[in-house]
Amino acid sequence: MPTLAKFIEDRRARVEFEAIKLDKPIALTDVPTPALVIDLDIFETNLDRMQSFLSEKGLGLRCHTKMHKCPTIAHQQIARGAIGVCTAKVSEAEIMQAAGVQDILITSPLSTEDKIERLVSLAVTNDSLKIVVDSIKTATALNSAAAAAGCTVGILIDLDPGMGRTGIKPLDAALKLGRHIRDYCDALQFKGLQMYAGDCMHINNYEERRTTYANIMEKGRQTREMFEADGIPVPVFSGGGTGTYDIESELGILTEVQAGSYAFMDIEYRDIASRTGPIFEDFQPSLFVLVSVISQPQAQKITVDAGIKCLASDKSVPQFREIEGVVYNWAGDEHGIVQLNKPSREILLGDKLEIITPHCDPTVNLHDFFYTYRNGVLQEIWPISARGCSQ
Amino acid sequence: MPTLAKFIEDRRARVEFEAIKLDKPIALTDVPTPALVIDLDIFETNLDRMQSFLSEKGLGLRCHTKMHKCPTIAHQQIARGAIGVCTAKVSEAEIMQAAGVQDILITSPLSTEDKIERLVSLAVTNDSLKIVVDSIKTATALNSAAAAAGCTVGILIDLDPGMGRTGIKPLDAALKLGRHIRDYCDALQFKGLQMYAGDCMHINNYEERRTTYANIMEKGRQTREMFEADGIPVPVFSGGGTGTYDIESELGILTEVQAGSYAFMDIEYRDIASRTGPIFEDFQPSLFVLVSVISQPQAQKITVDAGIKCLASDKSVPQFREIEGVVYNWAGDEHGIVQLNKPSREILLGDKLEIITPHCDPTVNLHDFFYTYRNGVLQEIWPISARGCSQ
Repeated sequence: MPTLAKFIEDRRARVEFEAIKLDKPIALTDVPTPALVIDLDIFETNLDRMQSFLSEKGLGLRCHTKMHKCPTIAHQQIARGAIGVCTAKVSEAEIMQAAGVQDILITSPLSTEDKIERLVSLAVTNDSLKIVVDSIKTATALNSAAAAAGCTVGILIDLDPGMGRTGIKPLDAALKLGRHIRDYCDALQFKGLQMYAGDCMHINNYEERRTTYANIMEKGRQTREMFEADGIPVPVFSGGGTGTYDIESELGILTEVQAGSYAFMDIEYRDIASRTGPIFEDFQPSLFVLVSVISQPQAQKITVDAGIKCLASDKSVPQFREIEGVVYNWAGDEHGIVQLNKPSREILLGDKLEIITPHCDPTVNLHDFFYTYRNGVLQEIWPISARGCSQ
Repeated sequence: MPTLAKFIEDRRARVEFEAIKLDKPIALTDVPTPALVIDLDIFETNLDRMQSFLSEKGLGLRCHTKMHKCPTIAHQQIARGAIGVCTAKVSEAEIMQAAGVQDILITSPLSTEDKIERLVSLAVTNDSLKIVVDSIKTATALNSAAAAAGCTVGILIDLDPGMGRTGIKPLDAALKLGRHIRDYCDALQFKGLQMYAGDCMHINNYEERRTTYANIMEKGRQTREMFEADGIPVPVFSGGGTGTYDIESELGILTEVQAGSYAFMDIEYRDIASRTGPIFEDFQPSLFVLVSVISQPQAQKITVDAGIKCLASDKSVPQFREIEGVVYNWAGDEHGIVQLNKPSREILLGDKLEIITPHCDPTVNLHDFFYTYRNGVLQEIWPISARGCSQ
């Protein structure tokens, strides 16, 4: 019988990372539904576009893998020039590191002893690992654990942009924590700051988003200046996301952008305006849930085999790809009822259809594999190796 | 390189079923958070109470495993007297059958060839397997596939209670399908009817729930009488759930009740009134999400490490177990911000707290294991073997 630590380690060792190739080409519509599918041409265009945009502006791309949870995708992003990845949790970092990803930033603070131990275990063999801290208490605990293990841990101080979710207050409180780390935490290596204003990402108007975001981030700039005036260099300033990727270089505060959703896109991000128009089309939806029509109890309605267990339901309702005149309605854990108002194509029992996801991150977290395809033909199957890693 | 069918079969073969015991007793609070935990004393009382209630009334309990997705729990329910289980999807049935559960009813119709093949593969070695059908088209396809495989498949006709989700219209349309199965589908064995009025389960007033439900189910009774008058016996009538468990015997329509949530309960079910009071307390919450306090950026608020990736967000907000005067607010994929209005106990950074889930089914589907405990001490760990099986 295992210890708890051994049980957790054993289960992690069973996680698969490698892309799977099938013996022969098959049609996307042969995949059992509901299935999470990636249109590779669009996906790759999204990856290229974000990388080249940020590279041109001299900004680093630190891809947030909490969105895709897939080492195969992380490796593709790094191969295109991303400087590294983020994870939200230590268990995600364990998966990414085991799959060969080195430069990892954990963007959420830890507080409990067991998680600090797991973090230090990773840091022992990975000197590119970084984590945010937002309290003297946690910094002290982390420093002790790292010192005991004979390693150092890279640190960003997490600044609260006013959301009250995580982070220490900018300016004086942050500087006090910075000095504490400099003066008392020899096993912590201060790398810089993080300030993620998540509540700005979806402001549905570009100018308003830009102005609100700039005002909030100004305190980050001032905090950096206080650090530097105090003799604490700030080589890294991490934050931002898909919603602010084209604002960051104008502000000149961040050194790296934590974008994630741009690779897949979703309805939530489509609905924010872009710099040039009312729909955010800088990146195109590349992720879909393939569903089957399984029943038609009433005329003008048809039921698909996909409900809240395979489509995140925290945001708007799902929409169909390239079908107009129909409305998806949630119908419980396992089903959606589609109102056929004036469908732009005929929809029949047994048909397979693609749904654009309302919110990509939690939708991905419901599935075990990405089925990737090009021109309607299945290519590789990619394990979502860090699915369920909320720990 | 595998075929697609082999890939799916291989992954199913890797699923673990067995309960895991650790080497020595540890405290529940040593479990890494967020974690799905079961308070065994309450859980077992819930199982006993539902079984004894229905047994006394002469009704069968057919536990819906779409809720817990766990063969260990299914076996416990059957050991207490349940006549069998339901699954929502064929991939769940594959897991339950592989884990040794025999009497399985799939409560949602299939329409695609690949799923019909998978169903027939199960039926070849399990003559207790049953599935609902709601169209002549599907019945015909299923009959052909079963005949080709040399097996028979048990069938319930699914009646639409008016929700328009799945099911054929009661009365004439249903009888026509029944005659078609009798006359033309030698490889289908007609067992009876299913009518699941899911939208009645959460009517928040007992008398209203009872009256509405009775009116809807009356068409089910009439349909059964039409079948019997036509010489088609209806030995099984399946439906109902936790919200109507104590109404069924008075109506005398069902022969078996498809209850699931009673084992864990959730906020959604707590909020429907019971026969005797404004809160439904016939069964008590036994399932919780254990979370850690990880940050406190602002006074009067504190942040926990559990957001919509480990708590289903389709219904009400989470509540804390045995803590009054605090309010959980969703704070994205990974976090919740807890407003400390007038907390009935002190809450500090690093504390571990239990959350009552808003909606048990989709919350379970986010996790890989149940950590079971008694008196604060961890007992077995149960794999959620059918997690993610929406196919």
